Amino acid sequence: MVTFSRLIHFLAKDGQTYYGDAILPAGVTDIAKTTHARVIQGDIFGQHEVTDKIAEVKMLLSPLARKDIGTVRGLGLNYEQHAKESNLPAPKYPILFYKPITSITGPHDEIPVPSLAQQSEGLDYECELVIVIGKEAKDVPENRALDYVLGYAVGDDVSHRDWQIKRGGGQWGLGKSFDGWAPWGPGIVSSKLIRDPNALQISTKLNGQTVQSSSTKDMIFGVAKTVAFLSQGTTLLPGDLIFTGTPEGVGMGRKPALWLKDGDRVEVNLEGVGSCTNQVVYQKPSSKL
Amino acid sequence: MVTFSRLIHFLAKDGQTYYGDAILPAGVTDIAKTTHARVIQGDIFGQHEVTDKIAEVKMLLSPLARKDIGTVRGLGLNYEQHAKESNLPAPKYPILFYKPITSITGPHDEIPVPSLAQQSEGLDYECELVIVIGKEAKDVPENRALDYVLGYAVGDDVSHRDWQIKRGGGQWGLGKSFDGWAPWGPGIVSSKLIRDPNALQISTKLNGQTVQSSSTKDMIFGVAKTVAFLSQGTTLLPGDLIFTGTPEGVGMGRKPALWLKDGDRVEVNLEGVGSCTNQVVYQKPSSKL
Repeated sequence: MVTFSRLIHFLAKDGQTYYGDAILPAGVTDIAKTTHARVIQGDIFGQHEVTDKIAEVKMLLSPLARKDIGTVRGLGLNYEQHAKESNLPAPKYPILFYKPITSITGPHDEIPVPSLAQQSEGLDYECELVIVIGKEAKDVPENRALDYVLGYAVGDDVSHRDWQIKRGGGQWGLGKSFDGWAPWGPGIVSSKLIRDPNALQISTKLNGQTVQSSSTKDMIFGVAKTVAFLSQGTTLLPGDLIFTGTPEGVGMGRKPALWLKDGDRVEVNLEGVGSCTNQVVYQKPSSKL
Repeated sequence: MVTFSRLIHFLAKDGQTYYGDAILPAGVTDIAKTTHARVIQGDIFGQHEVTDKIAEVKMLLSPLARKDIGTVRGLGLNYEQHAKESNLPAPKYPILFYKPITSITGPHDEIPVPSLAQQSEGLDYECELVIVIGKEAKDVPENRALDYVLGYAVGDDVSHRDWQIKRGGGQWGLGKSFDGWAPWGPGIVSSKLIRDPNALQISTKLNGQTVQSSSTKDMIFGVAKTVAFLSQGTTLLPGDLIFTGTPEGVGMGRKPALWLKDGDRVEVNLEGVGSCTNQVVYQKPSSKL
């Protein structure tokens, strides 16, 4: 039984880390602007309670603690216009890939770029609606699929096109998996509040300039279809995340191509949810190598 | 500090589930034949102790409990001869993909084949050496990479070629991810006992007939190189598994192709480790769909 409206996970000014239900000032919908939250106690996917205790937010973290996150899936080419800019036909079935748990970070964390990804061009942004599975789901029909969704967030499926497409032998694993390459948040808006996840504005700003601007209605496989399809023969578990693909406007699709560089600030935004703002930070070569 | 020689996870005749250090009769090396084990208490990746308590094995389970398994990675085309039978050039970098935690099962569990994978041909076996990461590893040099390995097991990277290659939009996710499509075990042999993981016989029997028979020395990226490479910019965590690719002889590489069917028994075997034997079981369509 989900009791919260906007779930956040945060470091409080009292030095503790909590789950909380965000308290937003009137007229504000971006969870990134949360200053206070009602502390939640218990198991987010089971028995829990929104308490009367109010804590002051110092820093928003990944909306789920690492121990509460299961498998992180991603879809490729899931927006009509993005498939077009990639010069590829719209897929007949969802194109499924994975990101490791170590790629997950919070809505304001840095995006570290390791030496391996500095050797060639291709660092790119991808704003995406993120589905959070709330209940074990297997062989779920499309018309009941949304019952298994805890809520929605926004994420950046950071990708290095050279490693993703050219050096990875065709598999996208190497180019999408580095530590910190899946910042998401700023919180999880309950599916009680978002009745139609396929009618939300979604966008990216790069250093303040809008570079992606679309709607989740351009998704080829909508949220219900995605959950239903992926659950066929495969059990989706509470805490599993699905990054549902990005709309047109990625750096790779531009002429000339637009690649992220050290110091860039990327903001991804989803209507009714809010924004994640992350700075690209090139790492120094490790002394261990 | 690793204290065990052959780690197993099992249901005992007393009805409890334990970790244990397998006790093998003289001359036996296949952990699947274990009848008794010394019970291990504590954290497998931290403080733990091989106790004097001996338990009788009723059924071997996945050598790590689900809560102790992190990210499951796989490599594609990692044997010279398998790349040849696939008519593809040897890869320049490891080809990385992932399998979800729900694909993981024990050494004697059934391989369930859902409706989706019964619609077309292409069900195939892949015997693989499985690396178990024992310590957090990031930017590890090749000459120290084996220090981060807890031990080795054998697994079957069950794959449906139609979903993997033709219907997945080029990504292998859909065809390798179904529930129970990564049986592994029968236990984890400590890296103390296997000094050179790249000199082990590896094989598959299908209904008793040998269909794959090779050595891990045919691996293009050996164990140390694989761990070192994958740790670049990416933190490997204790309990992460790496399925390191399969040698030649898969069903797809044969003329005519040899596909698994309902009731088939697949045995994968790794020298010094032992065997996993799993039966293919077609599932009835779910009534929920």
